[in-house]
Amino acid sequence: MLDESVYIKPGERIDDLQRASLRIIQNPKTLCFGVDAVLLAHFARAKPGECVCDLGTGNGIVALLVCALYPVRHVHAVEIQAQLCDMARRSVAMNGLSSKITIHQLDLRSAADRLGHGTFDLVLSNPPYLPKDTGLLNPSSTLAVSRHEISCSLSDVATASAKLLKNRGRAALVYRADRTAQLLSTLSQARLEPKRIRCVHSKPGTDACLILVEAVKLARPGVVVRPPLFLRDSDGKASAEMEQLYKGGTLLV
Amino acid sequence: MLDESVYIKPGERIDDLQRASLRIIQNPKTLCFGVDAVLLAHFARAKPGECVCDLGTGNGIVALLVCALYPVRHVHAVEIQAQLCDMARRSVAMNGLSSKITIHQLDLRSAADRLGHGTFDLVLSNPPYLPKDTGLLNPSSTLAVSRHEISCSLSDVATASAKLLKNRGRAALVYRADRTAQLLSTLSQARLEPKRIRCVHSKPGTDACLILVEAVKLARPGVVVRPPLFLRDSDGKASAEMEQLYKGGTLLV
Repeated sequence: MLDESVYIKPGERIDDLQRASLRIIQNPKTLCFGVDAVLLAHFARAKPGECVCDLGTGNGIVALLVCALYPVRHVHAVEIQAQLCDMARRSVAMNGLSSKITIHQLDLRSAADRLGHGTFDLVLSNPPYLPKDTGLLNPSSTLAVSRHEISCSLSDVATASAKLLKNRGRAALVYRADRTAQLLSTLSQARLEPKRIRCVHSKPGTDACLILVEAVKLARPGVVVRPPLFLRDSDGKASAEMEQLYKGGTLLV
Repeated sequence: MLDESVYIKPGERIDDLQRASLRIIQNPKTLCFGVDAVLLAHFARAKPGECVCDLGTGNGIVALLVCALYPVRHVHAVEIQAQLCDMARRSVAMNGLSSKITIHQLDLRSAADRLGHGTFDLVLSNPPYLPKDTGLLNPSSTLAVSRHEISCSLSDVATASAKLLKNRGRAALVYRADRTAQLLSTLSQARLEPKRIRCVHSKPGTDACLILVEAVKLARPGVVVRPPLFLRDSDGKASAEMEQLYKGGTLLV
């Protein structure tokens, strides 16, 4: 059995993704993936042979899950932070996926210039949630860049996605529910027309915490608002749908 | 007992609103109110003493329900079609609400010039759902004007609402769920910031059929996506929440 400890650095740990024997390297002090990444990967519905771009991949979680869930051709994952790129590359290598996933240390605003305009079938993103003027933050920290709009705004993500996508290509995003209106407007302005929405609630009777949106480049207006997704039932147990996603695993955070 | 037949014309009928002894005159050949009007009136949450405008009131259903539900100061209801204004006025008179509700036969695009700019606390609208280039329609018919964007576009409704409202005043709208993205973008463009959203599903597990949105004039971005509203339970019976709205009545359509 392969000794995975050769892949990790001090402060990091290896977590099991409970799917296709995948493992991921995480550092609890910088960034651990959450339920949003898992939901996005499932929501994305990549088709066989598609070419996928993951904008702001962090430690590579969405790229890894997409490869585990769908027989895509290749995932190009873009991340501006060197430390996270390094961690993501080691996770990719550890899983033997170096031929399927390429990690690019790149500002997503220049992603299309480097990876090709109009070349992707699907662009995924779990963008920074918080406007940069909210909350206390240390702009030099890995976590701040990942959570706040320091390196890129929502509009940057939409513009970059539109450039990367073929006509009729899809962008799939997960975002904080309280920014739903901005997300939909920003996508429309970038000519990414929202076509499928799903609201995520922690349990029945609560406000949505996250929103999942699929938008299609240059599509006609008209969106399907899918049934709500509840993370837990009223009694606090994981909902049947989440059980299905996690297959009884321990990913729920 | 008052003989209500003096209020109605051939082809019309009087329906009981099951609330505060209210009755409404309807003509099944032109327009009968639906669940959307009932949901909008409940969603609107008018406060005591508020001045309310209902844009595109049709037969007056939302104006009547708002008066039944909330101790508002006055409802100014705007409707472009003479036949519907006539029907709405007779419903208002029949219910003894002529001092509370005024029906204005008016193009909503000139509503602010006639009723006052920046004078309303709350504007309600159940706008035409269908772009005018969709579906077969007879542009001369009452039903076509009510259902299609013939006399006004969604953007006209948003612009008119923004003019009528005080700063921090609220617009509450009900709309087809498949036009959610356009509705939110159009409101934002009119500087009506979406602050509260509710998706309406016919039953659990189905796509949303309607969306309810409250937007606040000149507010900061940030919206609450409230729990979904299900019209019926999985077994097809009216949901507890709808039972509550209708108080066991027969309004459900």
